Amino acid sequence: MFSGAQISLYPMTDDFVRVILDAIGALEPYRPAFRIETDDISTLLVGPPDQLFPAMRDLFVAAAGSGTHCVLAATVSRGCPGEPDDPICTPIGRSEHDLPLEDRIASAIAHAAAAPMTGQIVAAQFSLYPLGSGHHMDEIYGCIDFLKQSGVFDRSKNFCTKLRGDAGQVFATLSEAFLRFGAPEGHVALDIKVSANSPTAA
Amino acid sequence: MFSGAQISLYPMTDDFVRVILDAIGALEPYRPAFRIETDDISTLLVGPPDQLFPAMRDLFVAAAGSGTHCVLAATVSRGCPGEPDDPICTPIGRSEHDLPLEDRIASAIAHAAAAPMTGQIVAAQFSLYPLGSGHHMDEIYGCIDFLKQSGVFDRSKNFCTKLRGDAGQVFATLSEAFLRFGAPEGHVALDIKVSANSPTAA
Repeated sequence: MFSGAQISLYPMTDDFVRVILDAIGALEPYRPAFRIETDDISTLLVGPPDQLFPAMRDLFVAAAGSGTHCVLAATVSRGCPGEPDDPICTPIGRSEHDLPLEDRIASAIAHAAAAPMTGQIVAAQFSLYPLGSGHHMDEIYGCIDFLKQSGVFDRSKNFCTKLRGDAGQVFATLSEAFLRFGAPEGHVALDIKVSANSPTAA
Repeated sequence: MFSGAQISLYPMTDDFVRVILDAIGALEPYRPAFRIETDDISTLLVGPPDQLFPAMRDLFVAAAGSGTHCVLAATVSRGCPGEPDDPICTPIGRSEHDLPLEDRIASAIAHAAAAPMTGQIVAAQFSLYPLGSGHHMDEIYGCIDFLKQSGVFDRSKNFCTKLRGDAGQVFATLSEAFLRFGAPEGHVALDIKVSANSPTAA
């Protein structure tokens, strides 16, 4: 298995460099578990799939705490056949992929409900891409069933689903969508945007 | 066929609202061809697949012309089986999907080379997701072959490919990747980020 994310943080302020540098400290606890590389477009995290969303949550909550309108955009992937297996990507928790779709939905709801709150309200939208399978729409519809019961479902949009709520629950919900749907060793990618402090938020 | 994009523009300045509002005027010539809807996270464009990238190019070049560090992020999709067919999404040009992979690569190279220059240098990275097919990696590798010969290839990264060059050629290359690879009526999605005026650009 190979898993990780290309993540970018966009603070809408003249002082964006300082906001980003201040927020990056929130990744410190995760450094031992991940390989981390940065260039001018994004930061690569390679490591356990079930630690990716806690790391992104802590980074984003640190940036949003500045009060600035911030967006985190990430391309998250597991099981890409073009990438080598890497022991650093071994999941810490149980994947539960031996369960049928209905039970995975129930398990995902329970995990999302148990997420710690952060006090930071966010809006998010994302697309789930289970690749290389003949049943990709079944897994997408199963995931949408879960999302509607996640407690942070906002609405379906063209090409994506929108969430709104506490960052703790929203990132936990994204993590469940990533971990529990699509084939266990299959190629699954997520395209996510998370926004805080938007002046145009509904 | 249903095709469109959810696009977001992130100007890294206190004055981001003005930069966005000024740039949106660049979409005016495209309004007759598209359905356009905006919320606090993104703007939806639904319309002909071969007009999506010219519209995004003109929007982004208008925003980047302010000199501010700007990023455009977009989720682009065609052929999603969960969306209804829509006559507004009829391609204006020829799709060329009747050609074998090798000829589509040659055609994509020719189209990208013929793109008008804008004078705006950008960096971009993107992931191509051909969904629901047993041969998704063949189409991805074919697309990568094209990208390496596109004139704006920068490098392969984990989970994505990075481009650099004039916005005219970069958006044309992204458009070719979207239009020519993956099954003709298949579900193809792109996750793209385009960046200009970054203080950390190599």
